[in-house]
Amino acid sequence: MTSKDDITVGGYLLERLAQLGVQSVFGVPGDFNLGFLDLVDDHPKLEWIGNCNELNASYAADGYARVKPKSVGALITTFGVGELSAVNGIAGAFSEHIPVVHIVGVPSTAQQKSKPMLHHTLGDGRYDAYYTAAQQFAVSWAFLNDTHTAAAEIDRVITACITRARPVYLMLPTDIAYERIPKGSLETGPLVRQPPEVDTAIEDFVIDEIVKLVKEAGSSVAILADSCAIRHHCEDELLELIKETGYPVYCAPMGKTVVPEDYERYGGIYIGSITPPEVKQAVESTKLILSVGLLNSDFNTGGFTYRIEPTSTVQLHSDHTKIQYAMFPDVGMKHLLPKLTSALRDLKSSAVSVAVPPFKATIPSPNDDPLHPIISQAYFWPRMAAFFKPKDVIVAETGTSSFGVLGVPFPKDSIFVSQILWGSIGYTVGATLGAALGARERGLGRTILFVGDGSLQLTVQELSTMMKCGLAPIVFVLNNSGYTIERYLHGKTRAYNDIVNWKWTQLLEVLGPDAKPAPKSYTVNNKTELEELLDDPDFAKAERMQLVEVMMDKFDAPEALQRTAELSTKANKYAQ
Amino acid sequence: MTSKDDITVGGYLLERLAQLGVQSVFGVPGDFNLGFLDLVDDHPKLEWIGNCNELNASYAADGYARVKPKSVGALITTFGVGELSAVNGIAGAFSEHIPVVHIVGVPSTAQQKSKPMLHHTLGDGRYDAYYTAAQQFAVSWAFLNDTHTAAAEIDRVITACITRARPVYLMLPTDIAYERIPKGSLETGPLVRQPPEVDTAIEDFVIDEIVKLVKEAGSSVAILADSCAIRHHCEDELLELIKETGYPVYCAPMGKTVVPEDYERYGGIYIGSITPPEVKQAVESTKLILSVGLLNSDFNTGGFTYRIEPTSTVQLHSDHTKIQYAMFPDVGMKHLLPKLTSALRDLKSSAVSVAVPPFKATIPSPNDDPLHPIISQAYFWPRMAAFFKPKDVIVAETGTSSFGVLGVPFPKDSIFVSQILWGSIGYTVGATLGAALGARERGLGRTILFVGDGSLQLTVQELSTMMKCGLAPIVFVLNNSGYTIERYLHGKTRAYNDIVNWKWTQLLEVLGPDAKPAPKSYTVNNKTELEELLDDPDFAKAERMQLVEVMMDKFDAPEALQRTAELSTKANKYAQ
Repeated sequence: MTSKDDITVGGYLLERLAQLGVQSVFGVPGDFNLGFLDLVDDHPKLEWIGNCNELNASYAADGYARVKPKSVGALITTFGVGELSAVNGIAGAFSEHIPVVHIVGVPSTAQQKSKPMLHHTLGDGRYDAYYTAAQQFAVSWAFLNDTHTAAAEIDRVITACITRARPVYLMLPTDIAYERIPKGSLETGPLVRQPPEVDTAIEDFVIDEIVKLVKEAGSSVAILADSCAIRHHCEDELLELIKETGYPVYCAPMGKTVVPEDYERYGGIYIGSITPPEVKQAVESTKLILSVGLLNSDFNTGGFTYRIEPTSTVQLHSDHTKIQYAMFPDVGMKHLLPKLTSALRDLKSSAVSVAVPPFKATIPSPNDDPLHPIISQAYFWPRMAAFFKPKDVIVAETGTSSFGVLGVPFPKDSIFVSQILWGSIGYTVGATLGAALGARERGLGRTILFVGDGSLQLTVQELSTMMKCGLAPIVFVLNNSGYTIERYLHGKTRAYNDIVNWKWTQLLEVLGPDAKPAPKSYTVNNKTELEELLDDPDFAKAERMQLVEVMMDKFDAPEALQRTAELSTKANKYAQ
Repeated sequence: MTSKDDITVGGYLLERLAQLGVQSVFGVPGDFNLGFLDLVDDHPKLEWIGNCNELNASYAADGYARVKPKSVGALITTFGVGELSAVNGIAGAFSEHIPVVHIVGVPSTAQQKSKPMLHHTLGDGRYDAYYTAAQQFAVSWAFLNDTHTAAAEIDRVITACITRARPVYLMLPTDIAYERIPKGSLETGPLVRQPPEVDTAIEDFVIDEIVKLVKEAGSSVAILADSCAIRHHCEDELLELIKETGYPVYCAPMGKTVVPEDYERYGGIYIGSITPPEVKQAVESTKLILSVGLLNSDFNTGGFTYRIEPTSTVQLHSDHTKIQYAMFPDVGMKHLLPKLTSALRDLKSSAVSVAVPPFKATIPSPNDDPLHPIISQAYFWPRMAAFFKPKDVIVAETGTSSFGVLGVPFPKDSIFVSQILWGSIGYTVGATLGAALGARERGLGRTILFVGDGSLQLTVQELSTMMKCGLAPIVFVLNNSGYTIERYLHGKTRAYNDIVNWKWTQLLEVLGPDAKPAPKSYTVNNKTELEELLDDPDFAKAERMQLVEVMMDKFDAPEALQRTAELSTKANKYAQ
């Protein structure tokens, strides 16, 4: 019995995702999710992106959500074998505040009660093991085993996902997926974030305290922005604050592109002790830093080497504010920022007089480049600055890429994707798939990936899915014979940091033989060859998938990586 | 301070593994495990097999343990990003009783106390999330944070691993790995299994009850063997029972090769309602079945379609015995089997008179093969019987392979590797790596993998590691355009069951360009081409890595798979 006022449970769930702007759905088919996949396949607004494996699919859902920050990542896997393959990707999304909705197709409610030894079970009768493990990496979860509560549970869980910007987990049994339920509040409109109640009195108190400190600091105030500003939907409010105050602005690595990098009062990336001297001096001599959305991870802070006194800091976060040592729970930046902007607007004049070091990339001259004419890290990254265009989505793998790219000014409206806190190598290949789909859906520009040879090996098959989807990312594979970030952490010349040297430039042809237009691959051995390629308009147009093997020295690494690794290594405290 | 009587904690752990016969150690380098990896790298008896990713590494450790059942699989990953990528492989080992020791390199004990926001952490201060999740899929675990207890904890956990034949989990902090501890009982010898105390009176009671039933059944007694007989080290005891009683013997799918398939009183595979009629009749008309090491999973029992009355059954298990409906806890088969053999020895004469259907593969004639001359499933599997040789290790992926290969008599001393209960597609590629290494270490024969095109895509990169290790498996890739087992479960013609058609025969060249001897790839389009290849002695010698793309019909599947899928689908109960 169907009617216009009801819908399947599976259909309800998909509508909630579509209402939030999801178009691409990631995952792998498997028993217990196939019936639900029919609904995805038939849905007019959703596209099923069948991934090669579930870990790559979870990375893709994460990358997608980063490029469509007003939407969510959607991932569908199967009971046990599928969902457990995705744990690392979901944990990474949890860590970095990425909203991913993970839907797992599971055996029928009857089987969940009688617990037969089905395939994909542990053989000891436990049907709750995966659900229990998943809860470590989700902010909300539900087992949709009752049609009377299914809609409410779906709404509760997805609302938590978008409110807290972290993954959630839904188990959908086969016998529930097609059961019909009332459409209910589906027709009212999309789910919305439900932040905690605001206590206006406390907020006003906090504003006053901040204003006091700003006045004391006179013209020496700066803004330090980081990724949570985007993760928690405060981009507009932050930009308003920046514009209205005129304070110098810097970003932490994870916050790169939270602020447009061509903004004239933007000074670049602050990364503690490994910040370029001029920027370091400018930031550390500032009397008051207003940080917005900071994530104080080791790689994000030059190994915890900030030289900014807590007494010189105001920290705005999604769910609390910190003024010097005082913590104000539940005073979130989304609501606070506009009030702060109003209060600070009149102090604009003195702040704009503070000089901001120009943020630009300097290509070393051959004389200053010991590896010349080989492509050195010191040369490659600044050279990329001229290649990037507005609206590019630039993805950088953990390693030489994520560190090297920090000093490169990105163009207006570009988006930086990297996993600086979680740091799972291989992530970016799956993430590039999701990011490129998100970019296409939003009408953004090219998607460009920088990935090390070692990292690419973990997740290489997802190149195939990129071509299957008709995407045209540019993939720069840094061939420097192994896991360079590991070499700098430990075991510089150890065999375990070596890898097999694949025929990188044949990968696209083997994994996408029917792709149209036909993909292209190149090897660049020296600066001349690199320059030629970057200056080639056909290459730059990025209308077909392209892979560039960049030959680099085995032990060459950006200085930021070398110094960060040194600090990490000390902390490991291996006994002598 | 070092002396001959002490050793590093990491070294102690590795010695315990080496004592158990581990030679190949699987995993991926990452911060927090690199220092420990130096010890592996330097160890005279251990070889570091650097895998492309951690899921494949966990599959490899599992496959290795199946081929070296008196040893264990050893897996080393890193905190968070590494270990969580391996969860699915560890859960599969848990499910199928495979002893894998999972060692995770974690931050120093100091950092575990102060909980800084390190890379690979969740950003919310929790350092116990991965440990907590891991406990769902392990029988024992320890956090080695104290040098005074480290040796005892290592011994306790590894003993549990080999006693219960299931995975265990050890966290090794960076500051503990090199701390020196006394060698202690390391010198006494390897750790040994510690099964529970035996109550002889109960055992004798159980023997008497079984003998009573055997006498009542007269000559109509048969043995049904399954994988737990191997998993729990009862192979010799089982063979003794078989030899001394002369009863007809059958195996469940997961138990294939537990009993030599060339044994004259072996009748083949029993799989419930999808058993070939002659065998089905023989088994189901037997008055008493003695099952040894049974794992009653759906795919292992033709979808739970055994037609053997509990009143006609005696079940021997690793940790209990079941006689009809009576359960005897702690009466384990390792200790019981020799006693049972003694008691039953005198009844031999009447049992040997029972005829056993000959177990042989019949190649269909062209007239009986609608797909002729295309290679049909009905033709391919029986044709393989003549290709297999004694001591071959034969790996079959979940799907057409794992079902198709059941009816093929395997030669003496061969080993069957498949994941019939857990059923994670892609498993066999990693497992083949581990199995081939184990086979080489044991001086066994060739390793032969049958994997579907869809499954291979999940884990393809491990082909590279096979070549890196100088292995020479034969990889048959069944190219039938997609996920065939899923097609039969649901969505036969749905796009989500399609895959990209890779250039399969170029994979080896791209992923192992420096392999010596050079690998070879072939495509066989019809029976003639297949025959030519199988009859080619150079091919059969398997002295280089080889990949064979076998072109098969999209909707062709072994009957066993079709019927099993039908039963699974009914159980899913999608609402109409």
